[in-house]
Amino acid sequence: MAKLPELPTFNNEFIANALAEIVRSEVKKTGLSEAVLGVSGGIDSALSLAIAIRALGKENVTAVMMPYKSSNPDSLGDAEKLCAKFGVKAERVEITPMADAYFAREGEMSGTRKGNVMARLRMIVLYDLSARDASLVIGTSNKTEILLGYSTLWGDMASAVNPLGDLYKYQVFALSRHLGVIDEILKKAPSADLWSGQTDEGEMGFSYALADTILYYWLERSYSVAALKELVQAAGADVAVVEQVLRRVERNAYKRQMPLIAKISSVTIGREFRTPRDWGM
Amino acid sequence: MAKLPELPTFNNEFIANALAEIVRSEVKKTGLSEAVLGVSGGIDSALSLAIAIRALGKENVTAVMMPYKSSNPDSLGDAEKLCAKFGVKAERVEITPMADAYFAREGEMSGTRKGNVMARLRMIVLYDLSARDASLVIGTSNKTEILLGYSTLWGDMASAVNPLGDLYKYQVFALSRHLGVIDEILKKAPSADLWSGQTDEGEMGFSYALADTILYYWLERSYSVAALKELVQAAGADVAVVEQVLRRVERNAYKRQMPLIAKISSVTIGREFRTPRDWGM
Repeated sequence: MAKLPELPTFNNEFIANALAEIVRSEVKKTGLSEAVLGVSGGIDSALSLAIAIRALGKENVTAVMMPYKSSNPDSLGDAEKLCAKFGVKAERVEITPMADAYFAREGEMSGTRKGNVMARLRMIVLYDLSARDASLVIGTSNKTEILLGYSTLWGDMASAVNPLGDLYKYQVFALSRHLGVIDEILKKAPSADLWSGQTDEGEMGFSYALADTILYYWLERSYSVAALKELVQAAGADVAVVEQVLRRVERNAYKRQMPLIAKISSVTIGREFRTPRDWGM
Repeated sequence: MAKLPELPTFNNEFIANALAEIVRSEVKKTGLSEAVLGVSGGIDSALSLAIAIRALGKENVTAVMMPYKSSNPDSLGDAEKLCAKFGVKAERVEITPMADAYFAREGEMSGTRKGNVMARLRMIVLYDLSARDASLVIGTSNKTEILLGYSTLWGDMASAVNPLGDLYKYQVFALSRHLGVIDEILKKAPSADLWSGQTDEGEMGFSYALADTILYYWLERSYSVAALKELVQAAGADVAVVEQVLRRVERNAYKRQMPLIAKISSVTIGREFRTPRDWGM
C-alpha cells in the first residue's frame, strides 16, 4: 500500500513548554499548586502526566491508578513503571468494589455499558481526590478521540484542564517519545482495556494513521469529502473510511458540549450569558 | 421587612408546552422515544418529570429514585407519591453499596465531598439506565442553581437536555403548582438532602427570593451592583447578599463550561470548531 501523506511535525520542546505553561497557569489561577490525574498505562495519560510534571514539578502531581479486576495486569505494571521513572507520587484506587456493587444489580450488561460505568467511576475518584488534596484534575483525551467521540461523556472527557485536547494521536506519540515515556507504553497498541485483546483500532474499524490524516486534512486544510477520498484511495486504503470517520465526528457532537438548556428567557446560560471559565478568579 | 419587587410571571400553560416541545424534539431527533430522570422528592426533579410526561407521555418516562442510606425517608416517600399520582414507571436504585464501597476507603470525608460523590453516582446510574433502555437523560437543574453553582459538576448538572435551565427558582415553583406537583413537595424547604435538617437556603446563607431577585435584575435588566444594593436595602435585607450572590456566579463559571483545551493548532475543538449539538442526526 502506498503511503499516506506526511502530517506536519512540530517542535516538541516548544509545544511541551507551551502545554505545561497552560496547565501551570490554570492551576495557579485557581489558587492551587497541585494536580491529579488518572494514569492507565496507556500513552495519553502518560503524556498528560509528563506535561503536568513539567508544569508543576513532580512533587506536586499525583498519579492515580484505578484498575478494575478485569483490567490487563500489564496496564497497571506499565503505569507503575512510568510513575517510578518519573518519580511521581502514585496512588492506587481499585474501582472493583464500586463497579461490582452496581453490576451485580443490573446483571447482564454490554461491554460498552460496563466501560462507561468504569470511566465515570474513575472521574468520581479523581474529582474526590482533587477535593481532598486541593488539586486540579488534568485531562487525558486527545483531539483524535474527542473528534471521533471514542471516549465517555462525563467520564474520561471530564477534567479542569486538558493539555492533550488539541493534539492528534500521532502528535501524542511524538511528544511522548520526546518526554521520555517508557518503551512499553510507546510500543503497545492503544486500548481502552475493557476486555482482553481489545484495541482502539480494532474496535473502531480503522487505524489512527488513517483517522488522523482524514481529520487533519478535513478540519485544518478544509479538504472536501471527494478530496479526502482521493487522498485515502491513493494510499491504497478503503475510501469508505472517510465517511465512517466524518460520521463519527458528527454523531458525537453532543459529547463536546454542555447539556442543552431549553431557552425561554432573553438571557440564557450558555447563549447570551457566556463568561470566561476563570471569571472572577 | 418591606417586600422585594415582584418578578415577572409567565403564562404557565404556554411555557409548559414550550418546554415539553423542546424535550420531545430532542428525544425524537436522536431517534428515541423514551426519557429517564432522577426523582429525588424535591421540586426541581418533580417539575422535570411533569414536563417529560407532557413531552412524551407517561408510558415513555422512567423516574429513578436513588436514595443513600442517610437520605431523609420523607424524600423517598414524596417521590413515590408523586410518581403514583403521575402514573409513571418508577425504579429504585440504592446508591448506598457503591457509595459506601468508596467512603470506606477514604475514611473521614466532608459532607461536600460525600455529596459530590453521591450526585455523580446518580449520574452514572441514569446514564447507564438510559443506555439499557435506549432513552435520553433529562436534566433537573434550574437557572438559579446553575448560576450560583449550587450543584455538582458532572453530577446533577449532567444531562442530554435540561428543561429547567432557563427557569429561576420562583418560576419552578409556579410551574410545578400549575402542573399538579403534590403539596408535600411544593411546601417543603428545598434541600440537597445530604444531612438531616439541611436546607439550600441555610447552607448558602441567603433566601431563594433574594437570589432570584438579584440574579434577574442583574442578568436580564442589567442593573448595576449599586442599583441592586439599593433594591435589596429598600426591602430591608442585608446589602452584603448582592456581592455574595454575584461572587458565586463568578467563581462557579467553570461549572457551566466544558473542560479547557490547551490550544496549539489553528482549529481547536470548542473554539474554531463548533457545531450544533445535534449535528448529523
